[in-house]
Amino acid sequence: MQVKRAIILLMAGQSERFGESKRKQLTVINGKEMFLYPLDTFFDSKMFSNIVLVVCDEDIEDVKAILHREGYDSDDFAIVKGGETRNQSVFNAIEFLDAIGFDGDILIHDAVRPCVPVDVISSLITGLDSFDAVTPVLCVSDSVMSSDGEYLDRNNIYRVQTPQAFHFDVLRQIYSNTIDEKSTDDYSKAVNYGYRTSTVTGSYLLMKVTFSDDLKIIEKILA
Amino acid sequence: MQVKRAIILLMAGQSERFGESKRKQLTVINGKEMFLYPLDTFFDSKMFSNIVLVVCDEDIEDVKAILHREGYDSDDFAIVKGGETRNQSVFNAIEFLDAIGFDGDILIHDAVRPCVPVDVISSLITGLDSFDAVTPVLCVSDSVMSSDGEYLDRNNIYRVQTPQAFHFDVLRQIYSNTIDEKSTDDYSKAVNYGYRTSTVTGSYLLMKVTFSDDLKIIEKILA
Repeated sequence: MQVKRAIILLMAGQSERFGESKRKQLTVINGKEMFLYPLDTFFDSKMFSNIVLVVCDEDIEDVKAILHREGYDSDDFAIVKGGETRNQSVFNAIEFLDAIGFDGDILIHDAVRPCVPVDVISSLITGLDSFDAVTPVLCVSDSVMSSDGEYLDRNNIYRVQTPQAFHFDVLRQIYSNTIDEKSTDDYSKAVNYGYRTSTVTGSYLLMKVTFSDDLKIIEKILA
Repeated sequence: MQVKRAIILLMAGQSERFGESKRKQLTVINGKEMFLYPLDTFFDSKMFSNIVLVVCDEDIEDVKAILHREGYDSDDFAIVKGGETRNQSVFNAIEFLDAIGFDGDILIHDAVRPCVPVDVISSLITGLDSFDAVTPVLCVSDSVMSSDGEYLDRNNIYRVQTPQAFHFDVLRQIYSNTIDEKSTDDYSKAVNYGYRTSTVTGSYLLMKVTFSDDLKIIEKILA
């Protein structure tokens, strides 16, 4: 592979709203742990020279065993220890990639969006030819209401998804200063820094599993 | 059935953004026309004394033939001619129900949301015990961006879905005056009128089919 391109797969989130004992990224959906769906997609796409899994300390052995069971070799991926927040987890992955001298394009994805359409990945990568940061967004077909009962113009609103794509030097720059922990969206950081940013069309399939009720829906989507 | 309860199933929309020759409500998904999914759900729930289908003039014969094919009797439902706008279609259904002396609870649903979980229907009906208008809403798990690139607080934003539930006299009152065609959301009209309104938890399954690309997703959800 000529182009150096890394994917950071974040799977260290604490699943506070999920309400199950197991971390949701390790929940088995249709016979396969959730994080394996995006991992298999990224791996099978052959678009990435580096796959970095960011995993909670206490899950690392479990994850290694699952990857071994699935036939992955230990040089197919790197495992980086997760931080206490999403931002810290991204930072740890950047530090790792920096340490191995990585320089290229990078995608960041939340493993709790297990279904990743390959055409979204392709659009993101193409977007990086002209922009420093690219994110998939989705129009909102529903009416949209604020919590005080006021209606917003849905034509003016987009749902921001992952994977998000960056030139590595841009991402490194964003994370070189103090990170605002209120913002967990990397693309928004690039916007705030004034980088050249753009959006591509996301997908309803890129559903984020947040609550345990979401499992029966993602089961259907992944079936 | 003691309680009088009607469902208005709107299927006269013009599908302008859909990009297929056939009206999307009549698109066949997994071997069945889209509108039959919600219709079957409402019919099989046995929660409704009256089912009103609002259909485009040019589709009426097709719809009757499909219903006959599916084993429905002509007294299982009423067909009302659709108007030029969603609001006019709702108005036509209200006029019909008024004319037959209907008085009870009413749900309004867009047939382009073919997958209706029965527990959402039950929540709406229960909600009408204490409120004049009830809608399902869904939290937004994604980050939310406005078209000028500004991020909004997703904790303050809800996606408004259908079916929406009303006391019939409330709905009649709302539609007795000139209707603001800019607003296509009946629940918002009840909010603006100052009626007692409330929300229940919607569902990701209540996806609205807007674009032709949505078909492959709803196929999975309905499978």
